[in-house]
Amino acid sequence: MKSLADVYPRRRGDPPGFLTYLGRKEAQKTRLRVIDYDEREVREYRPERVDEVLRFRESPGVSWIDVTGLGDTGALEEIGKGFGIHQLVLEDILNTSQRPKADLLEDYVFIVLKMIHYGREQSELDIEQVSLILGPGWVISFQEKEGDVFDPLRERIREGKGSVRGSGPDYLAYAIIDVLVDNYFLVLENLGEQIERLEDEVVQRPRESLMAGIHRYKRELLFLRKSTWPLREQLGGFLRDEHPLVTRSTVPYLRDLYEHTMQVIDTVETFRDMVSGLLEVYLSSMSNRMNEIMKVLTVIATIFIPLTFIAGVYGMNFRHMPELDVPWAYPAVLGFCLMVAGVMIVYFRRKKWL
Amino acid sequence: MKSLADVYPRRRGDPPGFLTYLGRKEAQKTRLRVIDYDEREVREYRPERVDEVLRFRESPGVSWIDVTGLGDTGALEEIGKGFGIHQLVLEDILNTSQRPKADLLEDYVFIVLKMIHYGREQSELDIEQVSLILGPGWVISFQEKEGDVFDPLRERIREGKGSVRGSGPDYLAYAIIDVLVDNYFLVLENLGEQIERLEDEVVQRPRESLMAGIHRYKRELLFLRKSTWPLREQLGGFLRDEHPLVTRSTVPYLRDLYEHTMQVIDTVETFRDMVSGLLEVYLSSMSNRMNEIMKVLTVIATIFIPLTFIAGVYGMNFRHMPELDVPWAYPAVLGFCLMVAGVMIVYFRRKKWL
Amino acid sequence: MKSLADVYPRRRGDPPGFLTYLGRKEAQKTRLRVIDYDEREVREYRPERVDEVLRFRESPGVSWIDVTGLGDTGALEEIGKGFGIHQLVLEDILNTSQRPKADLLEDYVFIVLKMIHYGREQSELDIEQVSLILGPGWVISFQEKEGDVFDPLRERIREGKGSVRGSGPDYLAYAIIDVLVDNYFLVLENLGEQIERLEDEVVQRPRESLMAGIHRYKRELLFLRKSTWPLREQLGGFLRDEHPLVTRSTVPYLRDLYEHTMQVIDTVETFRDMVSGLLEVYLSSMSNRMNEIMKVLTVIATIFIPLTFIAGVYGMNFRHMPELDVPWAYPAVLGFCLMVAGVMIVYFRRKKWL
Amino acid sequence: MKSLADVYPRRRGDPPGFLTYLGRKEAQKTRLRVIDYDEREVREYRPERVDEVLRFRESPGVSWIDVTGLGDTGALEEIGKGFGIHQLVLEDILNTSQRPKADLLEDYVFIVLKMIHYGREQSELDIEQVSLILGPGWVISFQEKEGDVFDPLRERIREGKGSVRGSGPDYLAYAIIDVLVDNYFLVLENLGEQIERLEDEVVQRPRESLMAGIHRYKRELLFLRKSTWPLREQLGGFLRDEHPLVTRSTVPYLRDLYEHTMQVIDTVETFRDMVSGLLEVYLSSMSNRMNEIMKVLTVIATIFIPLTFIAGVYGMNFRHMPELDVPWAYPAVLGFCLMVAGVMIVYFRRKKWL
Amino acid sequence: MKSLADVYPRRRGDPPGFLTYLGRKEAQKTRLRVIDYDEREVREYRPERVDEVLRFRESPGVSWIDVTGLGDTGALEEIGKGFGIHQLVLEDILNTSQRPKADLLEDYVFIVLKMIHYGREQSELDIEQVSLILGPGWVISFQEKEGDVFDPLRERIREGKGSVRGSGPDYLAYAIIDVLVDNYFLVLENLGEQIERLEDEVVQRPRESLMAGIHRYKRELLFLRKSTWPLREQLGGFLRDEHPLVTRSTVPYLRDLYEHTMQVIDTVETFRDMVSGLLEVYLSSMSNRMNEIMKVLTVIATIFIPLTFIAGVYGMNFRHMPELDVPWAYPAVLGFCLMVAGVMIVYFRRKKWL
Repeated sequence: MKSLADVYPRRRGDPPGFLTYLGRKEAQKTRLRVIDYDEREVREYRPERVDEVLRFRESPGVSWIDVTGLGDTGALEEIGKGFGIHQLVLEDILNTSQRPKADLLEDYVFIVLKMIHYGREQSELDIEQVSLILGPGWVISFQEKEGDVFDPLRERIREGKGSVRGSGPDYLAYAIIDVLVDNYFLVLENLGEQIERLEDEVVQRPRESLMAGIHRYKRELLFLRKSTWPLREQLGGFLRDEHPLVTRSTVPYLRDLYEHTMQVIDTVETFRDMVSGLLEVYLSSMSNRMNEIMKVLTVIATIFIPLTFIAGVYGMNFRHMPELDVPWAYPAVLGFCLMVAGVMIVYFRRKKWL
Repeated sequence: MKSLADVYPRRRGDPPGFLTYLGRKEAQKTRLRVIDYDEREVREYRPERVDEVLRFRESPGVSWIDVTGLGDTGALEEIGKGFGIHQLVLEDILNTSQRPKADLLEDYVFIVLKMIHYGREQSELDIEQVSLILGPGWVISFQEKEGDVFDPLRERIREGKGSVRGSGPDYLAYAIIDVLVDNYFLVLENLGEQIERLEDEVVQRPRESLMAGIHRYKRELLFLRKSTWPLREQLGGFLRDEHPLVTRSTVPYLRDLYEHTMQVIDTVETFRDMVSGLLEVYLSSMSNRMNEIMKVLTVIATIFIPLTFIAGVYGMNFRHMPELDVPWAYPAVLGFCLMVAGVMIVYFRRKKWL
Repeated sequence: MKSLADVYPRRRGDPPGFLTYLGRKEAQKTRLRVIDYDEREVREYRPERVDEVLRFRESPGVSWIDVTGLGDTGALEEIGKGFGIHQLVLEDILNTSQRPKADLLEDYVFIVLKMIHYGREQSELDIEQVSLILGPGWVISFQEKEGDVFDPLRERIREGKGSVRGSGPDYLAYAIIDVLVDNYFLVLENLGEQIERLEDEVVQRPRESLMAGIHRYKRELLFLRKSTWPLREQLGGFLRDEHPLVTRSTVPYLRDLYEHTMQVIDTVETFRDMVSGLLEVYLSSMSNRMNEIMKVLTVIATIFIPLTFIAGVYGMNFRHMPELDVPWAYPAVLGFCLMVAGVMIVYFRRKKWL
Repeated sequence: MKSLADVYPRRRGDPPGFLTYLGRKEAQKTRLRVIDYDEREVREYRPERVDEVLRFRESPGVSWIDVTGLGDTGALEEIGKGFGIHQLVLEDILNTSQRPKADLLEDYVFIVLKMIHYGREQSELDIEQVSLILGPGWVISFQEKEGDVFDPLRERIREGKGSVRGSGPDYLAYAIIDVLVDNYFLVLENLGEQIERLEDEVVQRPRESLMAGIHRYKRELLFLRKSTWPLREQLGGFLRDEHPLVTRSTVPYLRDLYEHTMQVIDTVETFRDMVSGLLEVYLSSMSNRMNEIMKVLTVIATIFIPLTFIAGVYGMNFRHMPELDVPWAYPAVLGFCLMVAGVMIVYFRRKKWL
Repeated sequence: MKSLADVYPRRRGDPPGFLTYLGRKEAQKTRLRVIDYDEREVREYRPERVDEVLRFRESPGVSWIDVTGLGDTGALEEIGKGFGIHQLVLEDILNTSQRPKADLLEDYVFIVLKMIHYGREQSELDIEQVSLILGPGWVISFQEKEGDVFDPLRERIREGKGSVRGSGPDYLAYAIIDVLVDNYFLVLENLGEQIERLEDEVVQRPRESLMAGIHRYKRELLFLRKSTWPLREQLGGFLRDEHPLVTRSTVPYLRDLYEHTMQVIDTVETFRDMVSGLLEVYLSSMSNRMNEIMKVLTVIATIFIPLTFIAGVYGMNFRHMPELDVPWAYPAVLGFCLMVAGVMIVYFRRKKWL
């Protein structure tokens, strides 16, 4: 199971604005990718050094600078200085236990998001922090480790599919966030199927081992909730407060995004309620099994304990027990035992215990 | 039981604004029906091709264009272009896992609703998405599959009953939504009767099989809640913010609609509380049954185990057991056993276990 | 128990504004009573026909038109037309599953309330809808069936007690609502006493049959809550928004009413918490009884099962059992059995099981 | 336990503004005490008749008129008229089931509070209503019965300690409320100690009788909550809305009061959570005891039931049982029994049941 | 466990503004430390007498006056007078059960915070109150007892690391609060690890003793919650309302602080949910153990009780029992017993009880 320490890394007593990478993913070397495009052209670069990137601050088209691996704080600081980014923003990028948020700053917009996906073995949720800075004419994205989640978006830019190419950097930022929110749907779909399978098991073949599953999904939903709820209020604020970098034509897309987020949150809440319901069904099944066990014990004990007493009576060694000499006494006693058992069985049938 | 996958279809990594039908109902071919009316006349059409529909954008009366079956995205796109509808709105129409909402856009109002009804066998809830676009002089409605739910409304238009004919397209939109909200009442009434029947069962003849019913209603109410709560805030916003397409005379009807929605939500919440109460009663009954089983076991075992011991004592083979030779010993022991049993029975009576 | 169907009557697919009585109380014939008063005079009428009532619209004093029985929708419609009341308002009067509300319309104020009282046998809550329309110079009240709840108020008007006579129709409307809210206090007092009695029973003589009572009060409180919560927000809005028909001198009375409503809601919530607490005590008592039953079983079985084994040993038929011939063996074994039993009893005493 | 009827006295069908004392404390005769002070002088009176009090309305210093015992409604009415107090306010003073509140009226401020304290035997909470009217130059306080809670405050006025003497009537009103809120701290401290003691008991020596205590504290906290929550919103409104009678220099004291109230509410909520936690521990302990009882039963029964069967086998009277004649058979069987018992004991040790 | 009395010390009936130390930490003698710095210089003092401190009110640089030990109320009063601090503020500093808050007063800002840390033995939470007063050019901090938590901050000031030296007193106040909020992260990290360890235990080796741990963490989280929730609203208000003492450049730091606080609150809530989940797993495991115990009892009893009856039958002493003389009867009966046992074992296997 996911260790808590991954989610709440230790924040050390460093002065504010002092940069250290606080994630638990192995701190990869920082790699850079730049896509610079306008309506007519797309140019891609993979700069080796940070200073090659700085010129995109003033380049005429839209530049998407993708920074992967947060291990090299020096490189980050250089980017920060080059693009005029506040020290605290850089600190937030490195502190991967940040809550999702959208800060509308004067010169740029700073957005923190969580990217969730199932790991290779599909067995546990992996949460990674993605930060975005939207400036005039450029977007910088920061990821903890290399991944292919943005490849379809890059493809769309290259091929000019959709309206990315014709729009400004705000649309690009939207498109990046949209990819991440879409990821939530994939994870939720996966989780939903797993919960449904668990539900079938719990309803049809309740057994103790299912409790672990219920507990696990409960916990995963707790983390999903923790990383989606703040999105709601942050995107809501984004829509409410106007910002010069967000053009009018992007607003409908942002509203769309907001609605998708609401849908994700609704679904997480519905899943939480479903898992709670599962727990109730599970506990009730377990208690029914207990009832069943007790019924078996009670039926057997209640039938045979009195019979054993009867047998015990005629096993007594009193000299004067006239019944013992009666020839039909033995079959009579056996018959009486059968009768007692029969009456009990009828009684238990009535009570629906059998 | 309703599959989750129906409710949360997979949203693929398509670019925003790319149209695909995401519902799980078999994607039916798109069929069109148009009712064009004003105070004097009603004209009905069943156009074969989409372009026949476009002329109603400018026609003088009120035109209700009903689109059934969302399989043909091309047709939809054509309608979208013809009526000047934003690509994201079209995407929302096709993505049937949309939350209910009302978007007050500049040139038109876009409304997403859920139509719920019990399937043929009355056994499970069926949720279908209905979208409405209210424009100047026209209303377009989109349904996933053909149904007869709007037939009474069409009849009213034809016969001029009520005030539809004399009112504008906003009243028509209201009337369509009203039909859908009325449907909620029908479903709730049905559900209410089922819950009441279940309640009688749980109170009078509690048994394990009822747990499945409780779980099922809990889940259905979860879905009902998910599809009604957003309505509240959306209709509330509708009432608060004025829109040029909503005339003053329609406002009381919208407020009425809002109140009906509140009533639906109240009822869903009350039902949820009732089903929770049922679960408590069920669990308490099950635990009482356990108590009853244990009481029977305890009474029988407690009476006969000591007696068996007594019989065992006189079954011992010691040579020197003077009692064995006493002629009245056997009846005395039997009498003693009876007495012990009697005392126990009195004791259990006192404890109200018998 | 109150049927749900009474509380959520079926709303049929009629067009909006089409009038049908939707209550389950037998639809009584409509009867009319009018009290027309000013500071000097009180005149009472019992008009047979609706048109006799219409002249009070313009009469100089304050006219209270009390309409009882909602069966005759024609009469209602006539009143509606005569007093200029919107069709939807009339529909709401007839739909007795309306939420409590206060609509501040342009020409009049429309108020829907629930009147609750215990039926004859004090055994179940009866909920009836009362609607009020406050116009300039007149108040119309609509009740589902005849009752005597307003008699003290009429008496006060006749005798000029309090400030009704000297005030306008807004004060009259307030006085009518006040009577209804006072009714809530009576019902709550009654319910409070019943809950207290139940509490004593649950704490002192817990038994299975009490669960039904707990469930019943839980449900009644659910309905009480459903019919009081909306009052709060509605009366709050009433106080916030000024209306020309509400004079400044009536405002303190409305605030008083608002506070009473808050008190009712507080009490309902407190009762809900109390009944939840009762359930916990009940369940805990039931589980304690289980413990007690198990203790008796365990004590008896644990003492006698080993003894029975000892007796069984000496009941074996081996030829070579030297103890059997020892003269003091029999009393020794009996003594040993007593000792074992004694040790066990001491052990159970220590464990506080005895 | 406190009777509910004390807390929710019957509000009769009297017209609004009709005065009756609705408390359950025996309606004591009304007694009056006046302290009239300014920065230089303090004068105390104990007027016999109400009309002696009226002159303090216009007296130059600050007058605190303390009215104890609400039995004499005539006297109250006279005070009401003399000081220009609305009839509904007087009604609220007499209706002791009022919610705490602060009404900022035009000519005066009306405040209702609850005074809570433990009775003589420290065994149950006593709730009494205290009302305050703050006018220009005077404060009237109404208590249900005589008490000494305000004595320290009077002493402070006499001795000129603190800033009472130099401040206006608003500070006096604040000081009175402050005494009452301080009382809450005393009660909470007491309750906290009791809950802690109960917690120790529940954790260390869980037993059935503790449930009653848990239930009692739960209920007391319910009442405390009911009488503190409204304070919050009322005092908050007091701070927000300015009132000519509240001078700027008193505002910090009111904010202080508000914070104390928040602290009381926080503590009540924390205690509620703690008592809920206690219930969980209690129920878990009870269920553990059940487990322990079952373990003893199971160990004893599981060891001896098979042994009894073995003894029973060799107690059978078959003629041809060769073992019976073997000389070492008896010790062998006894040894086998010991071995079986030993194996079982080892098994139970492994399972940690012993 | 932490005594409640530490957290809610008795607030005595003293007049408002009367100073007494209300903490339970032994009231240490007041010690003073001053750091006075500007961009070029740092001067440190440890004044013996309070009056030496007063001159820093007007000194040109930023002065941080750290007051440790609140036992000497006289010294405090002197500081209060010297720096123009309201009597109620001083009272709040001494009353260590204050809620966290931030008061934006006219001439200074008053902030109350809780410092939490684990005691020496890492076994229980220790809560201490820290108050700050931010004035023009100076910050006074009040701690209950000496500690080293601010040493790194002092070091940063001395060495000019970070931006403290170049900023005003508002940044200093921020830095002090930041240290305290960082402490929360340390405590939460510690707590998170402990909860994770407990979780492993509960899932893998559930046993009764773990309940105490669950209860303890639940309680600690309750206190953490109580001391963090108010921070949120208070810091939120701080950000919303501008104050002349808070410079524009400090605002981003405050927002950062606010986000950290939100993160702490989120984590506390997540931990609470996790501990609740743990309780469920624990209770479910305990109930599963009960099931297991019952299964063993039932299997053993159900197999051997019928067999004992059979043996009892052939132990009866009837004269006419033909089976007794049949030579193969004894092995036949034994065989029959084995068969019965075998059938039962198969039955239990099927039921998955074995």
